[in-house]
Amino acid sequence: MEVKTPSQTEITMSELVLPNDTNLLGNLVGGRLMYWIDIAGALVASRHSNKVVATVSIDNITFKHPVRMGEMVIIKAKMLYAGRTSMSISIRVYAENLKTGSTTLTNKARMVFVALDENGNPSPVPPLLPETNEEKADFEKECSIRSKK
Amino acid sequence: MEVKTPSQTEITMSELVLPNDTNLLGNLVGGRLMYWIDIAGALVASRHSNKVVATVSIDNITFKHPVRMGEMVIIKAKMLYAGRTSMSISIRVYAENLKTGSTTLTNKARMVFVALDENGNPSPVPPLLPETNEEKADFEKECSIRSKK
Amino acid sequence: MEVKTPSQTEITMSELVLPNDTNLLGNLVGGRLMYWIDIAGALVASRHSNKVVATVSIDNITFKHPVRMGEMVIIKAKMLYAGRTSMSISIRVYAENLKTGSTTLTNKARMVFVALDENGNPSPVPPLLPETNEEKADFEKECSIRSKK
Amino acid sequence: MEVKTPSQTEITMSELVLPNDTNLLGNLVGGRLMYWIDIAGALVASRHSNKVVATVSIDNITFKHPVRMGEMVIIKAKMLYAGRTSMSISIRVYAENLKTGSTTLTNKARMVFVALDENGNPSPVPPLLPETNEEKADFEKECSIRSKK
Amino acid sequence: MEVKTPSQTEITMSELVLPNDTNLLGNLVGGRLMYWIDIAGALVASRHSNKVVATVSIDNITFKHPVRMGEMVIIKAKMLYAGRTSMSISIRVYAENLKTGSTTLTNKARMVFVALDENGNPSPVPPLLPETNEEKADFEKECSIRSKK
Amino acid sequence: MEVKTPSQTEITMSELVLPNDTNLLGNLVGGRLMYWIDIAGALVASRHSNKVVATVSIDNITFKHPVRMGEMVIIKAKMLYAGRTSMSISIRVYAENLKTGSTTLTNKARMVFVALDENGNPSPVPPLLPETNEEKADFEKECSIRSKK
Repeated sequence: MEVKTPSQTEITMSELVLPNDTNLLGNLVGGRLMYWIDIAGALVASRHSNKVVATVSIDNITFKHPVRMGEMVIIKAKMLYAGRTSMSISIRVYAENLKTGSTTLTNKARMVFVALDENGNPSPVPPLLPETNEEKADFEKECSIRSKK
Repeated sequence: MEVKTPSQTEITMSELVLPNDTNLLGNLVGGRLMYWIDIAGALVASRHSNKVVATVSIDNITFKHPVRMGEMVIIKAKMLYAGRTSMSISIRVYAENLKTGSTTLTNKARMVFVALDENGNPSPVPPLLPETNEEKADFEKECSIRSKK
Repeated sequence: MEVKTPSQTEITMSELVLPNDTNLLGNLVGGRLMYWIDIAGALVASRHSNKVVATVSIDNITFKHPVRMGEMVIIKAKMLYAGRTSMSISIRVYAENLKTGSTTLTNKARMVFVALDENGNPSPVPPLLPETNEEKADFEKECSIRSKK
Repeated sequence: MEVKTPSQTEITMSELVLPNDTNLLGNLVGGRLMYWIDIAGALVASRHSNKVVATVSIDNITFKHPVRMGEMVIIKAKMLYAGRTSMSISIRVYAENLKTGSTTLTNKARMVFVALDENGNPSPVPPLLPETNEEKADFEKECSIRSKK
Repeated sequence: MEVKTPSQTEITMSELVLPNDTNLLGNLVGGRLMYWIDIAGALVASRHSNKVVATVSIDNITFKHPVRMGEMVIIKAKMLYAGRTSMSISIRVYAENLKTGSTTLTNKARMVFVALDENGNPSPVPPLLPETNEEKADFEKECSIRSKK
Repeated sequence: MEVKTPSQTEITMSELVLPNDTNLLGNLVGGRLMYWIDIAGALVASRHSNKVVATVSIDNITFKHPVRMGEMVIIKAKMLYAGRTSMSISIRVYAENLKTGSTTLTNKARMVFVALDENGNPSPVPPLLPETNEEKADFEKECSIRSKK
């Protein structure tokens, strides 16, 4: 099974905040953002494993900055670590005010996905080869989080 | 400001899993469930505060049981604790197979919402009066989680 | 085939009225409410029969109270009567203004569903055992409506 | 206020049945059809009144013919009668199997809408002038239904 | 294979412009209109061929007139020409302001679809028989566009 | 008004093809892709102008490669040219089969948007400064297309 690097599978999603995505004050509701985050993570996990994947877990998410209707949400998702059948993924969410051009990092998240075979059972995934120093540090950290469980 | 009990504001959401909510294996994707969970939590927080609310955070969620297309998802959301402007809410998610009638507790979550005034600033909420022993225990536990922060 | 009671299969749906559900005055359009009512009725009929179901008919519905964007719609659906392959279901719709906490019974409806086998043909359903006095009265009334047809 | 004829405001809607509109057997769910019917009726009532309209009632609807995923639904909506502020509308629903070309009249419905001013209060609508014999018969029949209430 | 005329398969779609279809100024976004245009064209091509169809191309579209939230969009689609497996279709888009009753021709488009067999390969379609002078002129023009390629 | 380069405003959208986006053969329908293309173009035009924008035109689009349910669509949009109030944008669409990892360039498009002020009137946009040789060639070509009109 061919080794892959984080940069081979990372993705960027750009979404426009529409009326149905917001509450009565015109702010993006948390649930819509979590929906986008999950799709972004699943795309990266599918790219790494070349298999159908399922969400295993998502770490605590904090919503510090309100995002407004008409703003652009940019989601960057990238592999942190690959186990035998599971994959850890990092998510960064940015909101960009299209009128001012200002961008804010609004959320960070860490998700775990599992690759599935055609019967829905866990299925092996390629090893991950971190390249940059940041990727290597993330890989070590993730390794240590998992070994404690 | 009138004190409220958890049972005054708890809600039940019932949702049918449709094709667009599932992956290629016909299993509910995590993001759709997170979207429903957030709406359920927001409805309870709005009922308690009688104000527009925003999601502050959602704790780690684990997805242990695949939910299938055509199954019913039942989400129960209930107040755990009320601070000055923020509210902690408990979520329970059940999946029911409509052909066999079997029901599974698939997820537990804990969320925090903040009440907002018309300018989007944090705004006071009524105190919560836990009634049952379980509600009192949840209230104490939540109190202690918050005091550690 | 195991007898079931109405309370075993009744459900509650809670929905938030979003911008796309409303007209230019910000009021919920009737068609969105009918969509939710149909899903609620189908969930109860599926729970009673443990089969895929199809809508047979829905009685006259009257829309007396406008429901506003941002309000919560609560739909309660419950078995009234079970024939050989068809089921009569009662629907109650409530709108709750989340800012005032006031709740209004906005609609009542009576629907009929049929259970289907895998070829789409009508298929037997369990008998219904009404328990409370109200359930027994509804059962009798429904029996008499059907015997006149 | 200018008199209008039924043919001046009648409309045709053509919709394709997509996966999310169907149940596990691939048949159109009743609620989606009711949603389309309501939009069609509202468009005719808006065309007649040149005002925002709200659904007042929809008569009993029977679903006799299953409609399949991938079929085309054609909805024809037309004025039956105009009162002072309310309008009665006739709906015909046809399903067309695009592979065989066969078309079936699947539903008939009668709806009532009310025209609203900017404050959401009932507001006068133009008189209706039936032209064909069928339109005149419909007008008389509707007149008699209303006078009995 | 039975010859068909343009009038046998032409369709009308009527759509209401909802909040999620519009930008921050309340104007219909071009992408939603292109989505509707494609569905309308596909319905006509399916009706002519009685087969599943795929979009081959759509000519330059110009958006000259803003369409507002709450307006009605009327799309008329009609066969221009049938080749061996492909079909050319004319689209006319009208926007109707429901408050004033005024209607504007907002877009014209020309699309090409191909009929597909069950394996997704191009599949023969019936010949088209233009009847009116306008249909005959369109047929000739289309013939000449295609012969130049 | 500050000059901007194409790379300052280019975006990437990643979308997963869901059941409702496909026809009965499981292939992405052209209209859904056009919807995504338009959003992508509008995001770039908004980023360049910092204003609300409207679609002016989209050139001929050809759909040569079927895209399957469950595949990932990647849309890259980038400024080609800025006039006084209008902007030309280049779109590239790629489909990636997540099981094989193979990627195909499926469509190219050229779109024009106009920036709008708060009354919906055309409004000035910053000049575009092409940097790379490819950007300069695109700029020249676009200049010449426009001068011929």
